[in-house]
Amino acid sequence: MSHPFFERHRATLERAVQAIRERTYWSAFPESASPKVYGEGAAEAGRAAFDALLGKRFPLTQPATVGDVGGERSPYGVALRITYPKPDIDGLFAAAGRAEDQWKKAGPEAWAGVCLETLARINKASFEIANAIMHTTGQAFLMAFQAGGPHAQDRGLEAVAYAWDELARVPARALWEKPQGKGDPIRMEKRFRVVPRGIGLVIGCCTFPTWNGYPGLFASLATGNAVVVKPHPAAILPLAITVKIAREVLAEAGFDPNVVTLFAHAPGGDIAQELALRPEVRIIDFTGSTANGRWLEEHARQALVYTEKAGVNQIVVDSAADFAAVARNIAFSLSLYTGQMCTAPQNIYVPRGGIATAAGHLSLDQVAEGIAEAVRRLLADPARAVEILGAVQNDGVLRRLEAARSLGKLVLDTQAVAHPAYPDATIRTPLIVGLTTQDRATYLNEWFGPIAFVIATESTAESLGIARDAVRGHGALTLSVYSTSDDVIARAIDVAEDAGVALSINLTGGVFVNQSAAFSDYHGTGANPAANAALTDSAYVASRFRVVQHRMHV
Amino acid sequence: MSHPFFERHRATLERAVQAIRERTYWSAFPESASPKVYGEGAAEAGRAAFDALLGKRFPLTQPATVGDVGGERSPYGVALRITYPKPDIDGLFAAAGRAEDQWKKAGPEAWAGVCLETLARINKASFEIANAIMHTTGQAFLMAFQAGGPHAQDRGLEAVAYAWDELARVPARALWEKPQGKGDPIRMEKRFRVVPRGIGLVIGCCTFPTWNGYPGLFASLATGNAVVVKPHPAAILPLAITVKIAREVLAEAGFDPNVVTLFAHAPGGDIAQELALRPEVRIIDFTGSTANGRWLEEHARQALVYTEKAGVNQIVVDSAADFAAVARNIAFSLSLYTGQMCTAPQNIYVPRGGIATAAGHLSLDQVAEGIAEAVRRLLADPARAVEILGAVQNDGVLRRLEAARSLGKLVLDTQAVAHPAYPDATIRTPLIVGLTTQDRATYLNEWFGPIAFVIATESTAESLGIARDAVRGHGALTLSVYSTSDDVIARAIDVAEDAGVALSINLTGGVFVNQSAAFSDYHGTGANPAANAALTDSAYVASRFRVVQHRMHV
Repeated sequence: MSHPFFERHRATLERAVQAIRERTYWSAFPESASPKVYGEGAAEAGRAAFDALLGKRFPLTQPATVGDVGGERSPYGVALRITYPKPDIDGLFAAAGRAEDQWKKAGPEAWAGVCLETLARINKASFEIANAIMHTTGQAFLMAFQAGGPHAQDRGLEAVAYAWDELARVPARALWEKPQGKGDPIRMEKRFRVVPRGIGLVIGCCTFPTWNGYPGLFASLATGNAVVVKPHPAAILPLAITVKIAREVLAEAGFDPNVVTLFAHAPGGDIAQELALRPEVRIIDFTGSTANGRWLEEHARQALVYTEKAGVNQIVVDSAADFAAVARNIAFSLSLYTGQMCTAPQNIYVPRGGIATAAGHLSLDQVAEGIAEAVRRLLADPARAVEILGAVQNDGVLRRLEAARSLGKLVLDTQAVAHPAYPDATIRTPLIVGLTTQDRATYLNEWFGPIAFVIATESTAESLGIARDAVRGHGALTLSVYSTSDDVIARAIDVAEDAGVALSINLTGGVFVNQSAAFSDYHGTGANPAANAALTDSAYVASRFRVVQHRMHV
Repeated sequence: MSHPFFERHRATLERAVQAIRERTYWSAFPESASPKVYGEGAAEAGRAAFDALLGKRFPLTQPATVGDVGGERSPYGVALRITYPKPDIDGLFAAAGRAEDQWKKAGPEAWAGVCLETLARINKASFEIANAIMHTTGQAFLMAFQAGGPHAQDRGLEAVAYAWDELARVPARALWEKPQGKGDPIRMEKRFRVVPRGIGLVIGCCTFPTWNGYPGLFASLATGNAVVVKPHPAAILPLAITVKIAREVLAEAGFDPNVVTLFAHAPGGDIAQELALRPEVRIIDFTGSTANGRWLEEHARQALVYTEKAGVNQIVVDSAADFAAVARNIAFSLSLYTGQMCTAPQNIYVPRGGIATAAGHLSLDQVAEGIAEAVRRLLADPARAVEILGAVQNDGVLRRLEAARSLGKLVLDTQAVAHPAYPDATIRTPLIVGLTTQDRATYLNEWFGPIAFVIATESTAESLGIARDAVRGHGALTLSVYSTSDDVIARAIDVAEDAGVALSINLTGGVFVNQSAAFSDYHGTGANPAANAALTDSAYVASRFRVVQHRMHV
């Protein structure tokens, strides 16, 4: 029995399955915010839809609601004053459990159909969601649109494609005929039923609530599990809009909307832990701090736990054909969204004797100053700077910035930038501090935010050795190398594969180490402490369901 | 660079991949022990090879050997007196780690090639291995040959096929071209390298060392991991022969043979725990007791842990077309290898008002007595009985048999059987005890061995309810139902899918609930406490490796 939503999106799904096999460039959801793509007035309508939410109770009707919660604040200073239904935990899980009974029997086409229609409608709400992301995470508008909209939707679709591809490998039935010499064969019919795990819990983060949230949400949903979405209390709105859309699609498709529910809560307390330990929760997708991720891995033993935690991302500078291009690329990576990205570089290793470039030798100080100067130039115009930097999401970033200023030699001090449109926004430029290899205790910690260390090493060999140990010991999502030497690049590849981290080589153009493209780049490897899974591969979906067979003679 | 061993077996691998997609009947390794299949003199040569091992040090040369261990005893009373190299744990892991450095870079074709050639040579040694299995596990010869030989080899090949299929889905490289409006596209080359997890540890059991050991061994090996094989101290020989063959193939293929090593040890102590906690061990495949399996899941946090533990297998008797055929089938399932199978039934639920059959109503007592009589007839001839029963593997089975006799009404007492060829063998027939639903504390435990309970229930609905709760609470590998009612069968399917256990329906012919066929039946579901994984599916292999990418502009 094929589902109408499935038929509507079948071609997209098939193309997505092709994409995950090839991992060449493909995107289902256009990243251009142009009216030519999303329609005249789409941006304005999205903004109006966002404005209409301000100061009100978010229009989400859920069971077991026992009050209101809220308290998000815009890093741009816009008053949000949005509240959300506060769920009774037992009541919400009971409702999700009832909804799951029907959902889990619907089968792969219905699961995929609902996911694909949900993603299509989320795409139509990209401008509304972009505003919601901007005013919770602090991302600049275009980034909020692209990373939180189409790019996140692509990541969601990628998870659906992997789930579909995995489910398609389980035959629904088989006729088993075992030869018996000259006698009749033994004939059995075997039927193989996909049985979802249970309830998935998605624990969102405050910087990329949709980009990091959609893979787990759609991977669990597309394999037949119900999902409880627990946003970070500082970034509820983007996931609330998402959940609302999913519930509408579920209802239209004839399912109980409680297959997807929102668990909004106020900051503080241990609600995430309480949710994670519910016996009904069999899958957890988490993005956040190392401490919280490790706690889940350690304690939520009844569930499969997928975590993306903190790491120390690194750049090894060995030599350069065009150092100015290297510096520009690094400067952008440090500045983008004020370095509040799990993929943003932190440690820049440079041999203390300097590096060779096509334009001659550069001393360590010249390299450091070159990067600093590239940052200054990139952010010279405040109007342009704020569109790259966005705003500071939380005070923790400010505290770390202040603390980091005295850790070593100040190569580039952080500065406040005034936003032309949002005078109350807190905006900071990157800080660059010079360190030596003696400062391990400093640079082997994650300093989340626009904080970079230029670390003087004995040699590129030492740089690579430190990088390897840092990935193994502390985790990393990205490693970057700049070199004109094939031998150094080969060694960097060895280090990356040995330590289990994605490597970018000589990025000097329009691609930045922070960026990870759906359908092509694996985000995280699952092979180092920064993440125990990758977005997205078979391993990310294959355990979200089990197969239960029955057999009988025929 | 294609490997000669890979080319030699490519067609078999491709056929195996087809088999796992269809899950219809297929086998790569013939189960017939006939000279027409395995060659004239093969049985005798295998026996001679086995005999040549007796009383000697097993011919396995491993590094870090610090003495001898052994002490296996044949359940048939044959003196084995075989010793094995006793490894120094640090030294063995150091050697395995060095071997892994080369192995992990060899790539999927080399990994598959070595696995396939190893399996082919193991197949040629099937008679030798059958004798080894018979005289360690106590299985009768033909069962030792089939289950421990070709069936186990098929399970190993199945794991290789899943691994290959999963690895083939990761492209080696991709050209990523992102359109840039009217400008040139951004072009990057991305390379995706499969990176194995580390060292796999296979912890064998004393009843099915090869059948339960090969899936994990070959799944880890085929995904590029080195493997340390730790046999149960009572059943070392079958895995020692296996490891020896794998090491010979590795060496011939140009690899360090320490990719596969044997860790034999004497009974007692906590060597399994010490091995399991080694930081180098990143994958564990375990078959054994619930207590040991849970310990591993709880403590070996650095590793992926796949466990098959204990369970309570059940038969729901509702009604029958041909009750004599039902009783014969159940009798065989209870008797086969003295019930020393993780899939053997234990609890037989019968409505206390009796059941309907085509030949009229049968009371509860008539049902119980019918099964008992079928067992008596099956085992009436001692010469035939010993070929079904095999021998008792260990004294724990005898102790449980004795303890179980007084648990309820004695429906069929256990009896000793004399083996015509092995007067010292300990052989016992099944015990059947009548219980009521009051005896939950008894029948919800696993009584491993030839111990069955006929449990009087209020109705089939109650039988199914108890079965569901038992699977959920205590785990099970098999559930069986006998009914002429489509409605009852539909409800049994619901219960099986809800509780997550494989269901066999109305088995009255040549298939028994204990049996699980490679390439078709999933053994275990991973959805109930008896096992956290299934043999074999994508989830069993997909996490044994990770993918690490690098990317650069082109």
